[in-house]
Amino acid sequence: MSGRLADKSVGMSDSTETTLKHLRHAVRLSREGMTTGCGGPFGAVVVRGDKVIGEGFNRVLIDNDPTAHAEVVAIRSACKHLKDFSLTGCVVYASSQPCPMCLAAIYWSRADSVVFANTIDDAAAIGFDDRFFYEELTKSIDMRSIPQTRVLVPEARAVFDEWNSMQNKRPY
Amino acid sequence: MSGRLADKSVGMSDSTETTLKHLRHAVRLSREGMTTGCGGPFGAVVVRGDKVIGEGFNRVLIDNDPTAHAEVVAIRSACKHLKDFSLTGCVVYASSQPCPMCLAAIYWSRADSVVFANTIDDAAAIGFDDRFFYEELTKSIDMRSIPQTRVLVPEARAVFDEWNSMQNKRPY
Repeated sequence: MSGRLADKSVGMSDSTETTLKHLRHAVRLSREGMTTGCGGPFGAVVVRGDKVIGEGFNRVLIDNDPTAHAEVVAIRSACKHLKDFSLTGCVVYASSQPCPMCLAAIYWSRADSVVFANTIDDAAAIGFDDRFFYEELTKSIDMRSIPQTRVLVPEARAVFDEWNSMQNKRPY
Repeated sequence: MSGRLADKSVGMSDSTETTLKHLRHAVRLSREGMTTGCGGPFGAVVVRGDKVIGEGFNRVLIDNDPTAHAEVVAIRSACKHLKDFSLTGCVVYASSQPCPMCLAAIYWSRADSVVFANTIDDAAAIGFDDRFFYEELTKSIDMRSIPQTRVLVPEARAVFDEWNSMQNKRPY
């Protein structure tokens, strides 16, 4: 399907159709997670070519896990499927704009791009903190609402030096 | 122990000692994860009062999971221990300054504060992208290196409206 997407003769309507198909899949997941009491109204799928290789919805409430956002669940599912920590060549479709945690998770996963439906302003309007957290992350460390203190520990730096001099390590 | 921390007669040296104890614990974990090939040189502990209720090291390589950073692993461990998605009243000790994913995870966990040893500049010096990702998150969406596209899907907004009108939902 990635070939078809690249085929200009098929035109924009086909890629839009594919985009909408995957995005609607993410939205269906968002409703499923919400109505089953698993978590907030958020769903995500990870697609390679035209194949869904990972999916998930928010599981914060059911798993008692504040990191179990839809995108994180879908990324972990896709990586498990691929047996690889890299999602290079993949697209993440999310029912709502990724929060900073999920966006940074997408960066670490090396996915190619993100498509989303609802925005962080839409999420703010129903009581979620995504927009506030983006604002926090742009502030200098001493201006953030959660205090962060640096304490010098020489052995911490020594571990970094050991990593740096390790042979045959796998970068990620 | 939280009582002792609040007891001014004990003075600053005691709380510094406590801080160093937990931070060194996080650093020991960072070495353990690195030397056993589980992931990069990062460790974290979650502390409530003076009790360690969660800990972890980076498991990206061993778990094929780009989200398995030390802080995320420690948060999930602490929440599992508490059977709660909230870490209000807890402190996160990290061998290195949290990346944006981990910092936002800490915000979602509602932990009280963060103490760290190495900085994102130290991490950049040994090849990690934390600093670059912070820079990316401060950019406007159209200037980021991973393209993010918003596509309007009316049913996505309808799910948000449903959440908004749900009775007895648990906010998080």
